[in-house]
Amino acid sequence: MPAGKTNSIVLGIDPGIADTGYGLISQRQNQLTLLAYGSIKTKKGLELAKRLESLERELTKLIKVYRPTLLAVEQLFFCKNVKTALMVGQARGVILLVGEKNHLLIKEFTPLQVKQGITGYGQADKRQIQLMVKAILGLKEVPRPDDAADALAIAICGLNHQNFTSQLGS
Amino acid sequence: MPAGKTNSIVLGIDPGIADTGYGLISQRQNQLTLLAYGSIKTKKGLELAKRLESLERELTKLIKVYRPTLLAVEQLFFCKNVKTALMVGQARGVILLVGEKNHLLIKEFTPLQVKQGITGYGQADKRQIQLMVKAILGLKEVPRPDDAADALAIAICGLNHQNFTSQLGS
Repeated sequence: MPAGKTNSIVLGIDPGIADTGYGLISQRQNQLTLLAYGSIKTKKGLELAKRLESLERELTKLIKVYRPTLLAVEQLFFCKNVKTALMVGQARGVILLVGEKNHLLIKEFTPLQVKQGITGYGQADKRQIQLMVKAILGLKEVPRPDDAADALAIAICGLNHQNFTSQLGS
Repeated sequence: MPAGKTNSIVLGIDPGIADTGYGLISQRQNQLTLLAYGSIKTKKGLELAKRLESLERELTKLIKVYRPTLLAVEQLFFCKNVKTALMVGQARGVILLVGEKNHLLIKEFTPLQVKQGITGYGQADKRQIQLMVKAILGLKEVPRPDDAADALAIAICGLNHQNFTSQLGS
């Protein structure tokens, strides 16, 4: 991975109404450091608007604490079905809004771009990506839950992209 | 329409990224008054997050000016395709969040509920609904654009629902 010139912090997000995976990574020179990862969960019985507000609140907290400059979000074109797409879309809308209101640079990556960015291989499966995330961040275990591991993969993808574009600029 | 006991103001919304229709209606006793309607448009060339922020800003302005207590939003289960569902979902997520953050009561209505609420007939077409909106609000013309007329239909549906539930409660 090419060296970033300054200390960059990226927040990777795998959007969902019930579970939004997040991963925060900082980069100084060649050194990647895992800051935090996990899943923002909202209560199933709660009204949709209240779940979205809870997602907004938790995400804003993470941004205030870790001060990322880049938000990397999975860009979906395909979903199991229209109902799932509407649900994920609603979470995604809130996530993008929070990023914009907190003045983060926002980059969207397709699942294919994430796979290629992490493993160099567009057909990589979930397990291969998780193992690469573990290796790249020097972790002892694959991060859990799955959506947090996905979010870390997206965050790494965001850092790679930032390094690449800053190299082009220099 | 049964009499509401107090002055209620409802904001009806037909969600979209490019165009979000809105309609604001107040009710005092049996009297419905059209306060405002139109379409919040966001620039096509703009990044998605900036379009969502622009939607959030304009919607918040409307709420500050007209002080509705109820937000009535179309609930979609079907869309042309998954891509459309993701796009509409993103706008819808922001709209619900704005409603929640401004402490509005939020009610969601399916297109079938709107049709039945306005025309008493679940198979009513767009034109029939628009003519009923015109008649109910005593307008000279059918409101334009279409998404504003849809938003007014949803707002009327929201008032009907509120009257019905307040009657049940009394």
